[in-house]
Amino acid sequence: MEKQLKEEKVFKDPVHNYIHVQDEIIWSLINTHEFQRLRRIRQLGTSYLTFHGAEHSRFSHSLGVYEITRRIISQFERAEYPDWPEEERMVALCAALLHDLGHGPFSHSIEQAFQMNHEDWTCKIVLGDTEVAAVLRRLGEDFPEKVASVIRKTYEKAIVVNLVSSPLDADRMDYLLRDAYFTGVEYGTIDMDRILRMLRPYQGRIVVKESGMHAVEDYLMSRYQMYWQVYFHPVTRSSEIILRQIFRRAKELFDTGHSFRFLPNPLPGLFQRELTVQEYLLLDEALVQTAFMQWRLESDELLGQLCSRFLDRKLYKYVEVESLDMETIDDIRHAFEAAGLHPDYDLEIDFPTDLPYDVFRPDSESTEKQILLLDKHERLVEISEISDIVRSISGLHRGKYHLYFPYEKVMAVLDRLPESIASIFIQK
Amino acid sequence: MEKQLKEEKVFKDPVHNYIHVQDEIIWSLINTHEFQRLRRIRQLGTSYLTFHGAEHSRFSHSLGVYEITRRIISQFERAEYPDWPEEERMVALCAALLHDLGHGPFSHSIEQAFQMNHEDWTCKIVLGDTEVAAVLRRLGEDFPEKVASVIRKTYEKAIVVNLVSSPLDADRMDYLLRDAYFTGVEYGTIDMDRILRMLRPYQGRIVVKESGMHAVEDYLMSRYQMYWQVYFHPVTRSSEIILRQIFRRAKELFDTGHSFRFLPNPLPGLFQRELTVQEYLLLDEALVQTAFMQWRLESDELLGQLCSRFLDRKLYKYVEVESLDMETIDDIRHAFEAAGLHPDYDLEIDFPTDLPYDVFRPDSESTEKQILLLDKHERLVEISEISDIVRSISGLHRGKYHLYFPYEKVMAVLDRLPESIASIFIQK
Amino acid sequence: MEKQLKEEKVFKDPVHNYIHVQDEIIWSLINTHEFQRLRRIRQLGTSYLTFHGAEHSRFSHSLGVYEITRRIISQFERAEYPDWPEEERMVALCAALLHDLGHGPFSHSIEQAFQMNHEDWTCKIVLGDTEVAAVLRRLGEDFPEKVASVIRKTYEKAIVVNLVSSPLDADRMDYLLRDAYFTGVEYGTIDMDRILRMLRPYQGRIVVKESGMHAVEDYLMSRYQMYWQVYFHPVTRSSEIILRQIFRRAKELFDTGHSFRFLPNPLPGLFQRELTVQEYLLLDEALVQTAFMQWRLESDELLGQLCSRFLDRKLYKYVEVESLDMETIDDIRHAFEAAGLHPDYDLEIDFPTDLPYDVFRPDSESTEKQILLLDKHERLVEISEISDIVRSISGLHRGKYHLYFPYEKVMAVLDRLPESIASIFIQK
Amino acid sequence: MEKQLKEEKVFKDPVHNYIHVQDEIIWSLINTHEFQRLRRIRQLGTSYLTFHGAEHSRFSHSLGVYEITRRIISQFERAEYPDWPEEERMVALCAALLHDLGHGPFSHSIEQAFQMNHEDWTCKIVLGDTEVAAVLRRLGEDFPEKVASVIRKTYEKAIVVNLVSSPLDADRMDYLLRDAYFTGVEYGTIDMDRILRMLRPYQGRIVVKESGMHAVEDYLMSRYQMYWQVYFHPVTRSSEIILRQIFRRAKELFDTGHSFRFLPNPLPGLFQRELTVQEYLLLDEALVQTAFMQWRLESDELLGQLCSRFLDRKLYKYVEVESLDMETIDDIRHAFEAAGLHPDYDLEIDFPTDLPYDVFRPDSESTEKQILLLDKHERLVEISEISDIVRSISGLHRGKYHLYFPYEKVMAVLDRLPESIASIFIQK
Repeated sequence: MEKQLKEEKVFKDPVHNYIHVQDEIIWSLINTHEFQRLRRIRQLGTSYLTFHGAEHSRFSHSLGVYEITRRIISQFERAEYPDWPEEERMVALCAALLHDLGHGPFSHSIEQAFQMNHEDWTCKIVLGDTEVAAVLRRLGEDFPEKVASVIRKTYEKAIVVNLVSSPLDADRMDYLLRDAYFTGVEYGTIDMDRILRMLRPYQGRIVVKESGMHAVEDYLMSRYQMYWQVYFHPVTRSSEIILRQIFRRAKELFDTGHSFRFLPNPLPGLFQRELTVQEYLLLDEALVQTAFMQWRLESDELLGQLCSRFLDRKLYKYVEVESLDMETIDDIRHAFEAAGLHPDYDLEIDFPTDLPYDVFRPDSESTEKQILLLDKHERLVEISEISDIVRSISGLHRGKYHLYFPYEKVMAVLDRLPESIASIFIQK
Repeated sequence: MEKQLKEEKVFKDPVHNYIHVQDEIIWSLINTHEFQRLRRIRQLGTSYLTFHGAEHSRFSHSLGVYEITRRIISQFERAEYPDWPEEERMVALCAALLHDLGHGPFSHSIEQAFQMNHEDWTCKIVLGDTEVAAVLRRLGEDFPEKVASVIRKTYEKAIVVNLVSSPLDADRMDYLLRDAYFTGVEYGTIDMDRILRMLRPYQGRIVVKESGMHAVEDYLMSRYQMYWQVYFHPVTRSSEIILRQIFRRAKELFDTGHSFRFLPNPLPGLFQRELTVQEYLLLDEALVQTAFMQWRLESDELLGQLCSRFLDRKLYKYVEVESLDMETIDDIRHAFEAAGLHPDYDLEIDFPTDLPYDVFRPDSESTEKQILLLDKHERLVEISEISDIVRSISGLHRGKYHLYFPYEKVMAVLDRLPESIASIFIQK
Repeated sequence: MEKQLKEEKVFKDPVHNYIHVQDEIIWSLINTHEFQRLRRIRQLGTSYLTFHGAEHSRFSHSLGVYEITRRIISQFERAEYPDWPEEERMVALCAALLHDLGHGPFSHSIEQAFQMNHEDWTCKIVLGDTEVAAVLRRLGEDFPEKVASVIRKTYEKAIVVNLVSSPLDADRMDYLLRDAYFTGVEYGTIDMDRILRMLRPYQGRIVVKESGMHAVEDYLMSRYQMYWQVYFHPVTRSSEIILRQIFRRAKELFDTGHSFRFLPNPLPGLFQRELTVQEYLLLDEALVQTAFMQWRLESDELLGQLCSRFLDRKLYKYVEVESLDMETIDDIRHAFEAAGLHPDYDLEIDFPTDLPYDVFRPDSESTEKQILLLDKHERLVEISEISDIVRSISGLHRGKYHLYFPYEKVMAVLDRLPESIASIFIQK
Repeated sequence: MEKQLKEEKVFKDPVHNYIHVQDEIIWSLINTHEFQRLRRIRQLGTSYLTFHGAEHSRFSHSLGVYEITRRIISQFERAEYPDWPEEERMVALCAALLHDLGHGPFSHSIEQAFQMNHEDWTCKIVLGDTEVAAVLRRLGEDFPEKVASVIRKTYEKAIVVNLVSSPLDADRMDYLLRDAYFTGVEYGTIDMDRILRMLRPYQGRIVVKESGMHAVEDYLMSRYQMYWQVYFHPVTRSSEIILRQIFRRAKELFDTGHSFRFLPNPLPGLFQRELTVQEYLLLDEALVQTAFMQWRLESDELLGQLCSRFLDRKLYKYVEVESLDMETIDDIRHAFEAAGLHPDYDLEIDFPTDLPYDVFRPDSESTEKQILLLDKHERLVEISEISDIVRSISGLHRGKYHLYFPYEKVMAVLDRLPESIASIFIQK
C-alpha cells in the first residue's frame, strides 16, 4: 500500500538544494541498513587522490538521482502527458533510488579484480533477505522483482527503464553536476532545469523536445569535458592501477596459502568468490582501507609497498605514447625482467577507452543509447542528425596509451635497459 | 634551506578555486605519510549524518587554511608593512598547514572518551620520529620546535601565533566557507577577499582596518548562524552521543577483561591510554568504522546495538527542555532504572555550550580573543565597542537542555514511568 | 475568462533561473506598453553609481515578484491548504506582477521633489484607459478594481493583501536576492526555498511554520546588512541628493518663467503637477537622463553644474556626525551664506532613517508588519518573542547624521568659515 | 609621471569580485566625463529584449577588461618573465580600460546604419580635446598616441597589442563571463584563473602553456555556445533589425527635408554624418530611446510604428529556411509589393555569419587570430593541430537564413501571395 508521509521530509543537498521525500516507502528505504552502507562507498572511487574535494559518497548521489527522477515524474503528472503510465511512479522512484545499491568499495577496481558486477549485486540485495526487500514488499509481493527488472533493463514497461537508464537519465545528470561541484571543476554546469522541462514521454521512450537541443548539446559537451578532465585523469588511473595490483597480489597470496595477519570476514569469502548477500554488505571502503593499513606490515614486501603507495599517495608515474604494438610491449616486459624489475607489477599499460564509462555514441546500433528529439511535426530524429556539434564530438577519440611505473625503481635500473626502451620512460 | 619549486603546483579546490604551492617544503609536507592520513579523518566528524554532503576531510581543510595564510602573507609582503616580520613566512605557513595534524578519528567524541588532546598530538607528530619532522628539519634543527610552539601559542613572535590562531584567523575563515559549501547551507558566505584586504599587521597583532567593520560583522553573523544551524544541530549531537557511548562501553568491556573478536593494533593501546606516536598515526575513521562493523557481532549486546545504531543512523531521539536541575535529573535516572532502562546509556543530557567550539566573546579578559579595529587615527578599538550588531549577538545564549534517549525503548516502558517524567518524553 | 497558454512560456532569469508563465493573461500583461516601460526604470535608482552592476530594471524585479508569488500559490494548491482561497489565484498573480507599475524614473527622488506617490500611479494605470486595464477586464469588468484594491491594501480578502505585501512577501524576497546578485555583495543570500516551504495560509494571513524560524532569522539579518551596506550607502545617498537638487532647481526655474532650451512633453506637466496617465507613462529614465544632458547647456549655471555632477558622477562628499541640533544646522547655513556659498544647494543634511525603506519592526502596533510563527500546537507567536537574534537586531538604530557638500567649493572658502564650523568639514 | 594611489581603490564587481585600482592615472580616467558616458551604453545592445537581465553597461565591461589585464600583467611581473616589457604596463592598462570608449548607442545597428566605426571614435576621443586625453598626457605628450596605436593594432610592441586584442584576450574573457552572468545562461563559465596562470609572454606574443590546453578548449566551447545561444539569438536579431529600420527611416525622412518634432543636437549631425568629437559624446542610449519615445507621434506613420515596436517589444517574427537564392528573394519582394506590403521594411533577410562577431578560426592566414600553445620543448603549436575538439568545432557553420517580417501584416494579406511564397511564412 502506497502511503504519503504526513509531512514531506527534506534533505539539504548542495547540488539540488533540497531532496524532497513524500512517500513513506522512500523514507523507509533510505533508512535501511543496506542503503546507509552507501555512505561508506565514495561516488568517484579514487578520484579524491586527484581532486581532494571529491570525497562524496554514493549515498548522496543516490539521493540526487532519486530527486531528479521525482522532479521529472512530477512534471509529467502535472502536464498529464498521456504517454506516461502514472501507476509506474513508485517503481521508477525506487529503482532510481536503489540503482547503485550493489556497488562495492572502489567499484571499478574491485570488480575488475574479482570479476564481480555491481548490477547483479544490486538485484540480489533488492530480492534477498534484506531490509530493503522487506520495505519493497509492502507494495506487493512482486514489487522487489519489478524494481530489479527495471535495474536489469528487462521491465515490461520500457519507458520506466528508459527513464532510469538512458543517455540523458537522472543518473548521468546527477553525477555530472555532483562530481563537478565536489571536484570544483567548472565543466559540469548544465542547464538541468531546461533539460527537464523539455523531456517528454513518447511512445514508450523519454525524448526531448527539439527546442531543447542546445541544452542537450551543452550537456554532451560538459560530459565530454568531464570524462577527459576528471574521470580519465591519469593520476586517478594511476591510483586505480595500484588498487588493482593490491587486490591481485592479496588474492595471489591467499590462493597460495599465505597466512594473513589481518583477514576479517568477509575478505576470505571475497578471495574465494563465495560471498553471501549478507557478507557482501559487510564490504565497504572503511574495511578496505583498514585492511591496507594492516597489510603494510604483512611479510610479503610487495603487498606492503603497494598498500603504502595507495595510502600515502605515492602513485606510479606515467608516460604517454601515441601508439604501442604488442611486440613493443613484450620487449619492454622482457627488458624490465632482465633489469630485475617485475614485468607485471612494475609496468601497467592503460588505454582510456577500455574504461567502464560510456561516452555518447549516436551511431550505436541500439536506439537505447540514442538521444531522440521530437520536432514540431511530432517526428523523432536522432540528435546528431541535426546537431553539428554533437556529430563532431561523437567521432572524437582522444585516447592515448599510458605506461604507468614506479619511477624510482625504473630510474634506478635505467642504465640496464636498452636505450630505445629507456628513452620511453624519460620523456619528461 | 628554503627553496622555491621550479614551477608552482596547484590543487583544484572547490572553495578557493586553486591552492597554490610555491615552496618545496610545503610540497614535501603535503606528501608525508602523516599529512595524507588526514584524508581519512572527516572535517566535521559525524555531521555527515545530518548533512549528507559534509563528507569532506581535514586534509582539504588543512590545505585551505594554508592557502588563506599564504594569501594574507603575500599581501603583507606586497604592501611591505613594517610590522610584518618577513623572515617568519615559512614558520607561519607550516604551522597553518599542520595545525590539525594531530586530530584523531571523530575527534571531539574520542577526545572526551579517552581524555586526549589533538593539539598535544599535533606537537608530538611535529617533533617526533616522523616524515613531517624530517621535512621541517631541512629548515633548521630547531624548526620543528618553532612550528610546535606556534601551535602551542607560546612562540616568541606573538604576531605569528595571532595569524594562525585568533578570532579572525585562516582556520575559522576556511571552515566557515568550506563547511557551508559541503553542507550546502547558505549561511557561511563571507566576503573573505574584503576581510583579507583589510587585515593589517600592527604592533605584534593582526588587526582590521575600521573600514572593514561591516565585513567582519557579516563574518560574525555567519559564524553565529553556522554554530546554531550546523555545528550544534541536535541530530549531529545525537550521533556524537552514540559514538561516545560506543567508546565508553568498549573501554568498560576492555577494562573488565572482555575478549574482543576484533581488536587490531592500536586499539588495545588506545583503551590503555598508552599510544606511541606511530600507533596514534594508525588511528583513522576507516579503522573506527571497521571496528564498529565487526563489533555488531560482539557478545555484548549493548555494544552491538550501539554500533548498529551508529552505522545505520538509528540515532537517539531528543526532547528539548527550558531548564533542568540536578534533582530532576536524578529523579529521571531513578525512574528509568526502576522501569528497567539503563540509567546512563538510555539517557544523555546535553547542553550545547559545553561544546568545544568557541563563539566570539568580546568581553573576554584576554585580548587574544578579541577582534581589534584600527581606526583612521591609528587607534585600536575592540569591535563590539563600535558595532551594535556585534554587541547584540555577543550576549546571546541560545542553549537549551536536550535529553537524548532510545525512543522505542522508552516508549515501551512509558506506563512504568511516573506521569510527570513520562510527559517529558512525549512532548512531541 | 481564465485561459492557460497552450504551452508554458519561460524567461531566463539569473536569480530564479526561469520565470514560468502559464496563463494567457499574465503573458498579455507582460506584453503591454505600460509593463514594457518598466525596462526603462532602474530597480535601484542611483545605486549603479555606487555598485556598477546594479543596472537592473523594475521589469526584471516585477517578473521575479510574480514568479515567487506563483511558486507560493502553486505550493498552497498542491498541499490543498483549506485556508487558501483558490479562486484568488489570478488576482494575486496580477497584483504581484503589476505592483510596481506606477514607479517613475528615479522614484524616490522624483516622488520627494514632486510629491507624487507611485502606488497611486499604479492604481491609476491599472484602472485607466490603458492596455493593462484592457487585459485585466478580460477577467471581468471589476477585475482591475480588485487588483487595484490589493495594491491599496483594501481588498476584502486580507490573505491576498498579506501575500503581496507583508514583511516576508515576494517583493522583499525578490529584491534582496536580485539586488545582491546584481551589486555582487554576498549579504543577500537567503534560503528562499526553505522559507517558501514553511509558509502557510492561516486564518486570513500568511504565517511561517515555527521550524522555519532560523531561515527567517537569516532573512532578517541579510536584510539588515543590505540596508546598511547597499540601500543606505552614503555614495548612493549623495547621488540621490544631487538628483533632488536638479529637480528642485528645474522646478524653481520653471515656476519663475525660465525658458528651457529642452523641455519636451511631459516635463511641463510634471512641473505643474498636472499629468494625465498617458503623460505619466512617457516618463522614464531615458528621458530624465536626456534632459540632464541637454540642461548642461542651460543658461542657469547651477542647473548645468548639477546635471554635470550627476552624469559625470562628481558627487558631493560627506562627513558623518554623531548628533546635530537645529541650532547648529542654522549656524552652518548662516556661515555658508556669509562665506558666499549657497545655504541650501551647497549643504544637505541627511539622516538615513528618514528614508522610505522599512526595516522590520516587531513592536509595530499593527500586526500587518509582524512576522508570525505557527508553532506545533497551532498557536501564533510573533517572531521576536522567541528569537533572540530578531529581538536584538530590532532595537538597533545605526543612523548617523551625514552632511553632504560640494568639496572643492567648501574647501575654497574654508578660511572664511568660523573654525568650529570649518572643522566639521575637514574631519577626514 | 606615474603615481600610485596612496591607498588602493576597489569597485565591487559581481564577476571578478573586486576591481582593484592602484594607479592614479587609471582612477582619473575612470572619473572622466567620457568614460562615465559608457554607463549609458549597454554592453549587449538589444539583448535585454531577449534576456531581461542583460542590462549591464560597457562601463562595467570596461572595468572588467582592465582588471583581467591588470591580473595578467601582475602575474608576468611576479614571475619576472624576460619576454614581458615591464615599461609597457601603463600603456597596456590604459588601452584595456579605454578600448570600448568610442562605442555609440546600440553600436552594431547604428554603425551599420551610418557607416561609423567605434574603433575610429575611440581613437578620436583618446587623441582629441577631451578629459581622457588630458589625463593620458600626464604620462607624456605622446602617450595618447601610444594608447591609440595599441587600439589600432599598430603599436610597435606587438606583445602589447596581442595582450589587448587576440583570440584569448581580456576583452573576450570578460565579456563571456559577464554576459553569462547577467543573462543567467550557464554556458559562459570558464576557468579564467587557470587560463591566466597558463599565459606566457613569448617572442612578442602571448601564448599558452600546453598544459592549459583543456582550459582553452573549454573556453572555446563556451564561446561557441554563447554565440549561438545568446549573441545570435533570433529575437535579438529581430530587435536589431527594427532598430536599423528606425535609423534608416529617420535618415530617409531627414534627407527628404522632413521637419521632425524632436531632433535635438547631435541628431542632425548624426544624419548628416558630420559629428565632432564633442557631439559624438552626446550620443547615448538614453537619447536614442527618448527620440524613439517622441517619434512615436511623428507624422510619418512608418517611423512611429517602428518606434512603438521597439519600445514595446512588438518585434518581427521570423521563419528559418535552409537555403535561399537571390532569385527567390526577388520573387518574395515582388510578391510582397504586389500584395501591398513594403518590399524593404516588411521583409528582412538575415544570415548570422554576416555579423560583426568573430568565431575563432584556426586556419586564419594571419597568426594574430591564432591561439598558440607552448609545449614542453618550447615549441609553438597552433591549438587546433593538437586539439581534436577545437578542430571539430572550428569547421562548424551553423548559420541558416532567417526571414523577419511583421506577422500580422503578412498574415492579413496571405491570400494575396502566391502559395509557394505564402507557405514560407506559415511554417510554424
